[in-house]
Amino acid sequence: MIKTAKQTLALLAGLGVGLTVSTSAMSATSLDQVMKDRGLTQKDLLAAAKTYTPTGGRDEYLAFASGGQSGQVIVYGIPSMRILKYIGVFTPEPWQGYGFDEESKKVLRMGNIQGKEINFGDTHHPAISETDGEYDGRYLFINDKANPRVAVIDLHDFDTKQIVVNPVFKSQHGGAFVSENTEYVITAAQYATPYENKFVPLEEFNDKYRGGMTYWKFDRKIGRIQEDKSFTVMAPPYSQDLSDFGKGPSHGWSFTNSFCSERYVGGIEKGRPPYEAGCSAKDTDFMHVVNWKKAEEVYKAGKVKKINGASIITMETAVKEGILFLIPEPKSPHGVDVTPDGKFIIVSGKLDSHTSVYSFDKIMTAIKNKKFESKDPYGIPIISMKDTLHTQVELGLGPLHTQFDSKPCVAYTSLYVDSMVGKWDYCKGKVLDKISIHYNIGHLMTMEGDSKSPDGKYLVALNKLAIDRFNPVGPLHPQNHQLIDISGDKMQLLYDMPLPLGEPHYVVAIKADKLKPVNRYKSGWNPREDKRSPYKTRAGREKTVKTPGKVEVFGTTIRSHITPETIEAEVGDEVIIHLTNLERAQDQVHGFAMYGQNVQMSLEPGKTSTAKFVVDKEGVYPYYCTEFCSALHLEMQGYLLVKPKGYKAKKGKMQEGVSYTQADYEKQVKTNIETQAVIDSVVGFITSHNYQDFKPVVALVEDATDQLGFAEEAKKKSEVAAAKKDWQNAMLWANQWWQYQVKTADMGLRAKTYLEEHGAKKVK
Amino acid sequence: MIKTAKQTLALLAGLGVGLTVSTSAMSATSLDQVMKDRGLTQKDLLAAAKTYTPTGGRDEYLAFASGGQSGQVIVYGIPSMRILKYIGVFTPEPWQGYGFDEESKKVLRMGNIQGKEINFGDTHHPAISETDGEYDGRYLFINDKANPRVAVIDLHDFDTKQIVVNPVFKSQHGGAFVSENTEYVITAAQYATPYENKFVPLEEFNDKYRGGMTYWKFDRKIGRIQEDKSFTVMAPPYSQDLSDFGKGPSHGWSFTNSFCSERYVGGIEKGRPPYEAGCSAKDTDFMHVVNWKKAEEVYKAGKVKKINGASIITMETAVKEGILFLIPEPKSPHGVDVTPDGKFIIVSGKLDSHTSVYSFDKIMTAIKNKKFESKDPYGIPIISMKDTLHTQVELGLGPLHTQFDSKPCVAYTSLYVDSMVGKWDYCKGKVLDKISIHYNIGHLMTMEGDSKSPDGKYLVALNKLAIDRFNPVGPLHPQNHQLIDISGDKMQLLYDMPLPLGEPHYVVAIKADKLKPVNRYKSGWNPREDKRSPYKTRAGREKTVKTPGKVEVFGTTIRSHITPETIEAEVGDEVIIHLTNLERAQDQVHGFAMYGQNVQMSLEPGKTSTAKFVVDKEGVYPYYCTEFCSALHLEMQGYLLVKPKGYKAKKGKMQEGVSYTQADYEKQVKTNIETQAVIDSVVGFITSHNYQDFKPVVALVEDATDQLGFAEEAKKKSEVAAAKKDWQNAMLWANQWWQYQVKTADMGLRAKTYLEEHGAKKVK
Repeated sequence: MIKTAKQTLALLAGLGVGLTVSTSAMSATSLDQVMKDRGLTQKDLLAAAKTYTPTGGRDEYLAFASGGQSGQVIVYGIPSMRILKYIGVFTPEPWQGYGFDEESKKVLRMGNIQGKEINFGDTHHPAISETDGEYDGRYLFINDKANPRVAVIDLHDFDTKQIVVNPVFKSQHGGAFVSENTEYVITAAQYATPYENKFVPLEEFNDKYRGGMTYWKFDRKIGRIQEDKSFTVMAPPYSQDLSDFGKGPSHGWSFTNSFCSERYVGGIEKGRPPYEAGCSAKDTDFMHVVNWKKAEEVYKAGKVKKINGASIITMETAVKEGILFLIPEPKSPHGVDVTPDGKFIIVSGKLDSHTSVYSFDKIMTAIKNKKFESKDPYGIPIISMKDTLHTQVELGLGPLHTQFDSKPCVAYTSLYVDSMVGKWDYCKGKVLDKISIHYNIGHLMTMEGDSKSPDGKYLVALNKLAIDRFNPVGPLHPQNHQLIDISGDKMQLLYDMPLPLGEPHYVVAIKADKLKPVNRYKSGWNPREDKRSPYKTRAGREKTVKTPGKVEVFGTTIRSHITPETIEAEVGDEVIIHLTNLERAQDQVHGFAMYGQNVQMSLEPGKTSTAKFVVDKEGVYPYYCTEFCSALHLEMQGYLLVKPKGYKAKKGKMQEGVSYTQADYEKQVKTNIETQAVIDSVVGFITSHNYQDFKPVVALVEDATDQLGFAEEAKKKSEVAAAKKDWQNAMLWANQWWQYQVKTADMGLRAKTYLEEHGAKKVK
Repeated sequence: MIKTAKQTLALLAGLGVGLTVSTSAMSATSLDQVMKDRGLTQKDLLAAAKTYTPTGGRDEYLAFASGGQSGQVIVYGIPSMRILKYIGVFTPEPWQGYGFDEESKKVLRMGNIQGKEINFGDTHHPAISETDGEYDGRYLFINDKANPRVAVIDLHDFDTKQIVVNPVFKSQHGGAFVSENTEYVITAAQYATPYENKFVPLEEFNDKYRGGMTYWKFDRKIGRIQEDKSFTVMAPPYSQDLSDFGKGPSHGWSFTNSFCSERYVGGIEKGRPPYEAGCSAKDTDFMHVVNWKKAEEVYKAGKVKKINGASIITMETAVKEGILFLIPEPKSPHGVDVTPDGKFIIVSGKLDSHTSVYSFDKIMTAIKNKKFESKDPYGIPIISMKDTLHTQVELGLGPLHTQFDSKPCVAYTSLYVDSMVGKWDYCKGKVLDKISIHYNIGHLMTMEGDSKSPDGKYLVALNKLAIDRFNPVGPLHPQNHQLIDISGDKMQLLYDMPLPLGEPHYVVAIKADKLKPVNRYKSGWNPREDKRSPYKTRAGREKTVKTPGKVEVFGTTIRSHITPETIEAEVGDEVIIHLTNLERAQDQVHGFAMYGQNVQMSLEPGKTSTAKFVVDKEGVYPYYCTEFCSALHLEMQGYLLVKPKGYKAKKGKMQEGVSYTQADYEKQVKTNIETQAVIDSVVGFITSHNYQDFKPVVALVEDATDQLGFAEEAKKKSEVAAAKKDWQNAMLWANQWWQYQVKTADMGLRAKTYLEEHGAKKVK
């Protein structure tokens, strides 16, 4: 009679159970003593209690941060501040196989710039897709500043699916931001350039260099940006920066700021003052106000100019059609943020101490009444600041970005020079609280802070280059994300979190329960295209197809072998290896790497991936599973044998390292019969309970059933060999039969334990 | 009279100070309420108190983990379990500029395999350099399994300095481990192959495929492995795995286990049972015992065979010279671990439930007395297990790796099948305690657990693919490192830490105060070679050198401009850009990226880096600083202008976007004079205190002095222009003069604040 998983496995392994496990007891060390030893205050303890998440606990929010020049996206939990995943986006990442298998290379190579392969990105601002102004948890968008690109990540599997290249910009800091039903993703040019891919002297900067805002059409059904339905509103060379879409009453409009409306061109090497002097000389820059609904109509009506294949609404058209307006804004602003109710737009000039609140109503009134103070040199109407301001607040030095609370009218603004976060009331124009942070704050973020209904609760301050917050790790320091409790009247610092890779610029956080990621793929899946792979291979159908100059493998992985275990090729052959991971249990990921070929695949359950390379030298190339997948993981290996061209095989039989006897075979069979009894008992337990109500158990049972099928096949092979007195193969197949049994039992026992722990009921 | 940093900066910015900052108050929410809301037990709270590290707090240990197939090394703090850095090793990483600047490409390309560029690694076992058997914190070694390579990371700056390729292996799981004075780093082949880069049929596996152990000579003075002083001991094709060096009494010896002494060759696609069946058929494998001191003598005496340029001690020589011995060990072991006193060697067979303790004394006695039970098929003497065992303990199912406590005779072993850690006494052969972990544990690690004097205190369990410990993030799960308190009699689970990128196999932890990383480089430094760069450029000495087909830039970066701001080239030119970061303050890192050229540099203070590419298309290519470095970071930009071949410039003057007047100039000068008064007062404060006793302050003062020098230059330029009534340039240079002043003041104030907070004294 089998009582526990431990006893069963012990039996399986032919072993007795060791000592009884002692129950854990509360450590004698008292809390007071620990606090004293570690120098913790009561306040620290409270912060610890607010952030510490015990084993198996879940975070309330998931945050998606840009990885800056690492080219990745970072996922972490709030309030535990534990990083859960780096997602490869613009930079190849081998753990995920990203950029190392053919399917993902295709995504990465969508991002080529004028034919050149680019293997990094400078990611800045992530945005979560929205439905009716609320984060819906379906997609994540992220821009690349260095090369003007946007990537689409599907949050059903956290994989990058698409990269689009802006055909007219050469720089793209300001993005990505989404409209309230994710109709469009906006990105703005930063460093002005000619739209055409042509040389134009800097002397013609004012006339021929241009900025602009691109509206990328997003198709929610297919989960991809539609480049052929996207358009760009051309703008003067003012260094357009961040944007935000209107919401609610301001839906249909977007707002983009700029930081060098001086149109200054540096050249310190030629004796000219540098950009920094010329771009910060004037007291104001321009907020760009765009009627994108109107722009969409104009685009649909075909009133566009085609440049590099892209649809461009020229400044002339934009002015004529009432699409583009300018409003002076305080000097060199960083952020433009629309309030949750859509009524106000908040801009901070980083070289001013004021935060300015513009009224959308007032802007509309001025536009309706054609009340403009002047036009800019390109004929774009300028609305006066005075006519559109709701209020200005002297918040502190170096104000940058603003985020919102669940409480009406409450906002938080990062103060770069002060190294503080300011909490204030944007309706009444009143400062409410301030808190010091460490140091160099850029963006800040509240929970669902860009949505129509922010959750408040927590705020994250994104601080740069923490020189003294953590143990030193050389001249390149981690960033520091500080978690702040904003649930009370006063802000409270809770946690300092180092960022070990990349420089996040912005982060968005979504309520974790809105995300419903899968944990395995449909069998034979290509996740990069979200469809069944044509190379899907079933167990027993593996094959290697040789054609002149090419070897194509349709293989599989399962605990603990790769099929095939030998691949033969000739020098000069192109080798293509498609592998399907047959596993269904969610932690049965396999990997695949090979000596000398720069190949690394991550095969999550169900996935089909492809490696492709040319073998240009004869030799022996081992390959193996790169993900620790079972006790026999190290044995999950194979060889690619590359023969010289025209090689003729000598006759030779495989020399066996060890010879097995009838006694070896019979001993193994005895073990296997005992093992089967254990399996039957476990199966009995599972099928006598309502296991089908437990999704993880259903997956385990599927896998176990597969393994048991394989065991049956191996058993038959051993019996066939034994009948021929081929004790060598009889013993080895009997051993393999047992391997499958052990894996069946392993999964069966995991299923049984799960059912016991989750209160499964006996069925009659 | 200047009173506070805040007031001063306010003055600098020409602003009044805003509202008084409210002092933070203890939140009204009580600890009990928080615990209730978050479902925390008293035990959770104690664990939180033992791990939570308040802002600015330091970790007691730094851990270095392999990144598995991510090809990186991961650095985290213990007990806070916060990840501090991912170090690029075998995989390009743009945040660090690794693989994107020429200096680091040189390191990465040392790892080419037979001429092919490899852009990932499968890192497994890090090792910290040792002096007299103690971690000395100087260097870190890490192996690549996929391609047989070892990398050297210098812990003075956490940078990868060298990659060496094993010339005879094609696989290298077992490594890196160091001898007690880091004389050698050992790596073992895993998948046997021919040593030559030739095709040999699998039928000749027993005769022509070989395993082995390579002893890499490390030169501590230059901090590099010396490939020409390294040697390999050839071994049978037994799938050699992990190793450990002897210490104390066993110094001079090394121990390597193996998992397929069956010499089984799979081939499931040909109807043969797979590797996993054939490699786990026998009850024992072989521990390889090597007298490496003797091997070193034999190597020095030239008794080696040269293969692919490497020095090989053949099996024949090894047997003849008494270098190599075998001892049966339990079936398919994972780890071999020498006890801190050097007296015992612990091996666990993962398919056995026993952990076996071998006595070094008994091994030596058998060797001395030539008491061998037999020879293997290659003539290598086999010592009997019985003659060398000290004890065997039935610890649990799937035992893998063992680590040690500070308490004598106390060891911890990971139990893969049981998903537990077992604590036991290896002298008495007694189980002491067990604790459950979640799940799939591979390695485990105690503080300085591989050294002569482990610290105990904490243990980390390295668990694979956490399916239910954290919020789900798609089919590829994070790993889970669980921190366990081992200071008491009973082990206590403290913390679950997700690993967001890569699959760490092993980790080593060192007392943090043993590490003394620098936080900036000497001026003009090439950190990859640890010497002054020939391209070091001083302020004011920047230049662009044009020769036919080539444009070479010797430039600099400083807050907030890149010199030059314009680079001109013709289509087809090779462009080489050397940049020196002139900053001295440790958080003044700059970056450099350019549109369309796959170039990204990380310029830590003092560093000189080089970007190189060919411009094959005409156009305008913006470049900029990629690291948020100051309020005017976005303005830190420039343009590469690529002209068509033979382009003739038209005459044209730069059109200015804005015209400035005498009044603009005079207004700016007035501000600057006021600012100078502030600076003088801050300088007065600093110089009247013992600031030279504070290292960070000295760096800040250096930088501030530099900036003030630049301010002086800009002032002169503005005065020259003003004298000519060139108000345009007068105003812009006056603005630049002010930019430098602000940066001077910023640093001065940071220095002043530091002095105030750290109790600087007035000097007379």
